Amino acid sequence: MCPSIEETPTNGAANGHTNGNAAEEFTPIEARPNPVPHHKSSPYQPVGDFLSNISRFKIIESTLREGEQFANAYFDLEAKIKIAKALDEFGVDYIELTSPAASEQSRLDCEAICKLGLKAKILTHVRCNMEDAKIAVQTGVDGLDVVIGTSSFLREHSHGKDMTYIKNAALEVIQYVKSQGKEIRFSSEDSFRSDLVDLLSLYSAVDKVGVNRVGIADTVGCASPRQVYDLVRTLRGVVSCDIETHFHNDSGCAIANAYCALEAGATHIDTSVLGIGERNGITPLGGLMARMIVADRDYVMGKYNIKKLKEIEELVAEMVEVNIPFNNYITGFCAFTHKAGIHAKAILNNPSTYEIISPADFGMSRYVHFASRLTGWNAIKSRADQLGYNMTDAQYKEVTAQIKIMADVKKITLDDTDAIISAYHHNIVNGVKKPLLEGLSAEDQAKIDAAEEKLGGVKEKRQLDAEAAADAPPAKKR
Amino acid sequence: MCPSIEETPTNGAANGHTNGNAAEEFTPIEARPNPVPHHKSSPYQPVGDFLSNISRFKIIESTLREGEQFANAYFDLEAKIKIAKALDEFGVDYIELTSPAASEQSRLDCEAICKLGLKAKILTHVRCNMEDAKIAVQTGVDGLDVVIGTSSFLREHSHGKDMTYIKNAALEVIQYVKSQGKEIRFSSEDSFRSDLVDLLSLYSAVDKVGVNRVGIADTVGCASPRQVYDLVRTLRGVVSCDIETHFHNDSGCAIANAYCALEAGATHIDTSVLGIGERNGITPLGGLMARMIVADRDYVMGKYNIKKLKEIEELVAEMVEVNIPFNNYITGFCAFTHKAGIHAKAILNNPSTYEIISPADFGMSRYVHFASRLTGWNAIKSRADQLGYNMTDAQYKEVTAQIKIMADVKKITLDDTDAIISAYHHNIVNGVKKPLLEGLSAEDQAKIDAAEEKLGGVKEKRQLDAEAAADAPPAKKR
Repeated sequence: MCPSIEETPTNGAANGHTNGNAAEEFTPIEARPNPVPHHKSSPYQPVGDFLSNISRFKIIESTLREGEQFANAYFDLEAKIKIAKALDEFGVDYIELTSPAASEQSRLDCEAICKLGLKAKILTHVRCNMEDAKIAVQTGVDGLDVVIGTSSFLREHSHGKDMTYIKNAALEVIQYVKSQGKEIRFSSEDSFRSDLVDLLSLYSAVDKVGVNRVGIADTVGCASPRQVYDLVRTLRGVVSCDIETHFHNDSGCAIANAYCALEAGATHIDTSVLGIGERNGITPLGGLMARMIVADRDYVMGKYNIKKLKEIEELVAEMVEVNIPFNNYITGFCAFTHKAGIHAKAILNNPSTYEIISPADFGMSRYVHFASRLTGWNAIKSRADQLGYNMTDAQYKEVTAQIKIMADVKKITLDDTDAIISAYHHNIVNGVKKPLLEGLSAEDQAKIDAAEEKLGGVKEKRQLDAEAAADAPPAKKR
Repeated sequence: MCPSIEETPTNGAANGHTNGNAAEEFTPIEARPNPVPHHKSSPYQPVGDFLSNISRFKIIESTLREGEQFANAYFDLEAKIKIAKALDEFGVDYIELTSPAASEQSRLDCEAICKLGLKAKILTHVRCNMEDAKIAVQTGVDGLDVVIGTSSFLREHSHGKDMTYIKNAALEVIQYVKSQGKEIRFSSEDSFRSDLVDLLSLYSAVDKVGVNRVGIADTVGCASPRQVYDLVRTLRGVVSCDIETHFHNDSGCAIANAYCALEAGATHIDTSVLGIGERNGITPLGGLMARMIVADRDYVMGKYNIKKLKEIEELVAEMVEVNIPFNNYITGFCAFTHKAGIHAKAILNNPSTYEIISPADFGMSRYVHFASRLTGWNAIKSRADQLGYNMTDAQYKEVTAQIKIMADVKKITLDDTDAIISAYHHNIVNGVKKPLLEGLSAEDQAKIDAAEEKLGGVKEKRQLDAEAAADAPPAKKR
């Protein structure tokens, strides 16, 4: 799953996505002839797994359906159109909308979005009954996602119907929707707490009457990855239609479950922007991109306009009045920030060492954080180099030790680090003892002096070095 | 993996954790005799998987090591002590600290935390060399987690050592640390991009000299759940010691990978509070709790003081200056908020229908959001009941239709919904036509009137109903 260096050029230039003008450069690829996943780089990867769809998945983007069920979401028509257009530019395969039976405005919004002429197919998500199906067909959508609860929980506490009733309702709705020339998906709800025999019997019946997709939904967010793999693989042997999957994230597996579903032969993944939905939501669009670009970068880069991710997330975050999580996939503020000294050194040598995703692919930047006690002398050397200072390795090591001492005493910023490097260089060149950091409190200065004394007279050594440096050819500012 | 209703009482009272006085009520359980995971409720769950440790895992909490590598983290000794004490009260098995070789203050902090007398064992995380190991042993820690990069990336771009060198260094360090009476773990770094034969050969060698644990680390966050399962299961057959795992979350699988590792026989999981660490971090403590309480509620509730989760997350979030993500596991503001009408109805009947985790277990509350166009009449009936209004089903349905109309026109709040229910009830009882919502703009009122007209004269019907109600025995406020 983890491509080798050759497979993931981390230099954005290699794929022509460097000038930020992504819309023009973006070249979608059409359905590719069953590419075999790239499992070469790791010796214990499955080799040529023909069940797997990780290199030919489709996205059913549900921000305008599942996302509308998010606590803070209120999308008026203008907001919905903005989101739909942004998702269409991103290149999602389907856009799913709230049921037109939910409210009159929901119906009108559905009609309006169908008229936008987007490239993405428009779906609406309705209960599995003829009344809702008829309303939905009349809105002009390309297809219907119908759903009914099949778990004992839902049959008892929600709609109260038995499996025979469910099957008959499903067959009637499917035949009607097909007769109207629309795509139709039939999904159970809470699939992972439904009886397996009931489920397979139902899916087999709807497959026989020509449903386009069946859906597996982890409505409560309880499923685990290997459980998902087993169910989807079993289902793959029972139906010949496509398989859509929908995963809630209550127990933290929504992205992993989507991935395992694709490995087992699922074809479509439901997502929403930032994962918004009921409770803490579903598989996030950005998180799925993070997962899939690691699995098959060519497919993701060729099909989706991933440089638009940040813009779409910011649009939706503003509308639903949330902050983008600090640790959000790809676009979180620290997603590409490296801090530990041993990390920083290797990242400076070759970003692939500690980065499985190239920030440039998403129009993002890498940041190596060296203003801390965890820094290492290679990171400081690299920074000094950026600042135009040229010193010996012994000098880089010494200024690094000084920076660690400062960082032990107070939280230091990038500016502080630069100031220390600069003052240290100045002292060497001029043979003086200017303080390395200005404006320290007496208390902090005392702590620093104590730390220096403890470290075996580093301070004295600095002076001696400075004197030596005054005699030797001075280090130059380039 | 998904317990049945009987296994997860959603009423907090059933487990004695209702008065918030969690510390006194908390009864830790000691290492239990190999409990068999509860896989009964789902027919396609593995039955009695004896490899699995999902019911006897241990936590190595690394907020004070991995977490210190988070972009925003600067923990002084006072902060470290607060975090260590909070984690100890939570009941984590181990607390891992930054290497004492990182800086002088890091060493002093390490010594200070060892002297706190915590129940948790104290570890420090050092490079695999004698110099670091000696410094670490002298701090008074209970054990050392040593690490060295084994992938070709790290061998080439980080330390530049070959496998023979690595093995010899490992054996020397392990034998020294054991001779000092300390626990020792040996981990590779970037394990999922290392050569499998190299890895197994190395782990086998360190196991033979009596290492306490070997570690698998997905340093770059590239591993997928089934890949993790395969590697850990293979390793389980090669070594007899414990297996620790460490997963970064770059591609969204850190929780799922931890879970699959436990299924395959891993014994220890690394976590940090809110997942903070390099880049977007590792398996979060709270997210792991969400996953594991679904897998084995008894174990989690008996061993960890999970009602402290929110307090610990708030403590760390404040220290590293981040907001708790809106969609955070368990403690995010919407983690237990239900919105869609069809969800709300079932949740009101039985929370297990749409909740796999009981909020009461974590001292949190459920919230059913019915102030939206997605609401349903069962939710509104339940709210009217809470407000003390008693109406007929037809009346509940009508006021629900009115609420949907309002919610189509503007974002309505809980207060708005209550006001509409109240005014509607008032109109019925008094046979009048008071506006259902005060203070609407003329524009909004016009939209509402148009919507009502369109919906087949709902407004007129309301008047007729109100008149009928004036004749009939009036609905009463209880």
